[in-house]
Amino acid sequence: MSAPQSYIDQHINTFQDQLFEFLRIPSVSTDSRHKGYVMNAAKFLIHQLENAGLEKVTLHETGGHPIVTAEKCPYEDRPTVLVYGHYDVQPSDPDDLWNTPPFEPTVKDGRVYARGASDDKGQSFTHIKAVESYLKTDTELPVNVKFILEGEEEIGSPHLIPFIKKHKDLLACDMVLISDTAMFGEDQPSITYGLRGLAYMEINIVGPNRDLHSGVYGGTVENPANVLCEIIAKLKDSNGVIQIPGFYDAVQPLTAEMRDAYKELPFNEEEYKSGLDLKELDGEKGYTTLERSSARPTLDVNGLWSGYQGEGAKTVLPAAAGAKVSMRLVPDQEPDKIAELFTDYVQSLAPDTVTVEVKAHHGGYPIVIDLDFYGLKAAAQAFRDVYEKDVLFSREGGSIPIVADFKKVLGVNSILMGFGLTRDALHSPNESFSLKDFHRGIKTSARFMELLPDFVE
Amino acid sequence: MSAPQSYIDQHINTFQDQLFEFLRIPSVSTDSRHKGYVMNAAKFLIHQLENAGLEKVTLHETGGHPIVTAEKCPYEDRPTVLVYGHYDVQPSDPDDLWNTPPFEPTVKDGRVYARGASDDKGQSFTHIKAVESYLKTDTELPVNVKFILEGEEEIGSPHLIPFIKKHKDLLACDMVLISDTAMFGEDQPSITYGLRGLAYMEINIVGPNRDLHSGVYGGTVENPANVLCEIIAKLKDSNGVIQIPGFYDAVQPLTAEMRDAYKELPFNEEEYKSGLDLKELDGEKGYTTLERSSARPTLDVNGLWSGYQGEGAKTVLPAAAGAKVSMRLVPDQEPDKIAELFTDYVQSLAPDTVTVEVKAHHGGYPIVIDLDFYGLKAAAQAFRDVYEKDVLFSREGGSIPIVADFKKVLGVNSILMGFGLTRDALHSPNESFSLKDFHRGIKTSARFMELLPDFVE
Repeated sequence: MSAPQSYIDQHINTFQDQLFEFLRIPSVSTDSRHKGYVMNAAKFLIHQLENAGLEKVTLHETGGHPIVTAEKCPYEDRPTVLVYGHYDVQPSDPDDLWNTPPFEPTVKDGRVYARGASDDKGQSFTHIKAVESYLKTDTELPVNVKFILEGEEEIGSPHLIPFIKKHKDLLACDMVLISDTAMFGEDQPSITYGLRGLAYMEINIVGPNRDLHSGVYGGTVENPANVLCEIIAKLKDSNGVIQIPGFYDAVQPLTAEMRDAYKELPFNEEEYKSGLDLKELDGEKGYTTLERSSARPTLDVNGLWSGYQGEGAKTVLPAAAGAKVSMRLVPDQEPDKIAELFTDYVQSLAPDTVTVEVKAHHGGYPIVIDLDFYGLKAAAQAFRDVYEKDVLFSREGGSIPIVADFKKVLGVNSILMGFGLTRDALHSPNESFSLKDFHRGIKTSARFMELLPDFVE
Repeated sequence: MSAPQSYIDQHINTFQDQLFEFLRIPSVSTDSRHKGYVMNAAKFLIHQLENAGLEKVTLHETGGHPIVTAEKCPYEDRPTVLVYGHYDVQPSDPDDLWNTPPFEPTVKDGRVYARGASDDKGQSFTHIKAVESYLKTDTELPVNVKFILEGEEEIGSPHLIPFIKKHKDLLACDMVLISDTAMFGEDQPSITYGLRGLAYMEINIVGPNRDLHSGVYGGTVENPANVLCEIIAKLKDSNGVIQIPGFYDAVQPLTAEMRDAYKELPFNEEEYKSGLDLKELDGEKGYTTLERSSARPTLDVNGLWSGYQGEGAKTVLPAAAGAKVSMRLVPDQEPDKIAELFTDYVQSLAPDTVTVEVKAHHGGYPIVIDLDFYGLKAAAQAFRDVYEKDVLFSREGGSIPIVADFKKVLGVNSILMGFGLTRDALHSPNESFSLKDFHRGIKTSARFMELLPDFVE
């Protein structure tokens, strides 16, 4: 075994403790009250990167949460890998559904439970430890490595794209390495070569100038909550087909070849259902569950609110109602265009009796990466060596908008080397991450760096 | 001027201070954390009734909030008036929309602002003061008077009906006097002779066993929030007609005579709209605004909740969604029957992919009182004498379910002697009550007692 691989095995307990320290920081980027914690997570990374032996470790202030960069680039003639990750996390609510405190990492059955355990603290941390395994053992780092770690992924990375555009030289590289996706199943190494895009919208409907007594006023004025439901009901038909005019115009149809490839992926629909306690799955008619989960666009209500939500009954006719609605996009749908189509359609459904406001939150482009890219091949071999199993290539339903931006601004492909699992419960209560995969992830990353020079074409 | 009427004029400032003390007690019956305050409000009334000179003043414990009774019944051969009121109030939320604290009565432009100012502390308190004006001036009380004051009106009076059934003798009377309605306009005395009934429902929809990542799972499972919206959208058609099968079966159609009477009521639609900051009103096609507000049944969403409601964007596919939906009923719709029809219809719309639970909160029967009843005539004359203006008789959109129960159990009519105004903002932030009407209300109640014996047929 190479010195770095031995170093990883010997220090895995320390690495875990360091990860737990990272997970204890409630770096919720979407909540402005947590701004200080997000900064603390950035500082934790600064310390880790410096300690690993990286150079030019820098905390860049932005208008929002900071961006952390670092590098170790000894070679002019070897490929440069830019590791991207994010140290911010989703909100932990609903907190009462967590079995253990969301920001107190708790180990159970070989998994660590905490918000951000998988998405993306646990996964991104592997690469820092991989580089450390070279630099601390005085082993030659096989490639140039750079890091860019942001604190705004969960709010749509508003400052990252301007930053990349402004720092093209600092970030110049041959590929981006990202661990923020799930493997296809336990012990089944997987590389995601496709991601859906995102358009995230909010609808706010305002009716009368105050909450009204539903007895006195009921029947005479439009009810914003009823209107909201009527609008949302018209966004999809009974076959799950999205009704926004023009929504499907840019969607690349699934080819027979693609559909065959989906069929070959191991997938147990019964297990999928029972894991969610559902009797029936549902979605767009005419497509399989796997196709619907990654190759077809979707529309989902993410949040809904109006009037009285408390205990008992309050006979109020609410003054306002609102919803968050997001759409997952596939090539070649453009988020801005889709946001515009959504807005136009919702406004066309809005009656004159209320005021309907539609605004766009963050969006992201869908992407599919060419399977012939040499970086993907090296990553697949690294996985094979560590996991002792062939890699599956698949498309994923989630969005990492930055992948499209790296392609556009830096002109490079991304390698989505995920160590997570679907059962990690990202964005849900009781998020977790397998400690075995944390360990294998570090080893896979180190092995990837070792193999990469041989794969350059 | 009679001694009682002079006494009222002389003591009006004291009466106001006593009312403010009453309003400072946050007796929110729907919130179990306020149980102690509801009790405090009951004790306040005990003290007031005893001090006024009433007899058999009693606090009756129930399974919930207490019922207060009292009486002064010197005569065998004169009519007995049972005053009904409620000392519980609606929740004050949303608190941030109040201009002054909801439980700190604040006087502005001749109105007192506080939760319960009009509904029903301010209005019901008038009758205690009216009786006091006789007993404190050693003037012969013209009729027998009884009181029944409850603390559960805003949660559907669950213990009142059993109490009335059990205490028919204690409560035996010739009519019930209730001040819990609005006058038709400022300085326009009005008697409500019709009330709508109520069926208040809650829908809870459960999908997957946890909140899911909308990227990873979006497109594969049914979204409870989308389903909720689709169900609610099917409750009414685009003409505002309720789609629940059988819903209108028992509805008494509006006769030409009734419609003519509605046309004669003073009503300024432009003022109504501008008071609500609305460009357009809305409701069931084919009926006027006034008809829709009181003589036609309605369906309104009272509350809506699902998923993420916070700042920014959270890409969650919610595990559950819920709504509170209530219907106002007109003669001869029965609340239990309507609740059953609602439940059946919602269940018929529910897809197999989620679990839909429908439950009924409190309900109430609609009622219309015969305009020939002598008590109504005496009340109209009392209004005329105090307000120096003819009384309007109208139907109201709200519900006072107990009116139907008094008819059923005690066999008596109710007189709805409202001193409120539509602008009182019942159930809304900044509820208020005119102090001038508080004063005139006490005088009208006292005058009514004085006149009543002469109207007995």
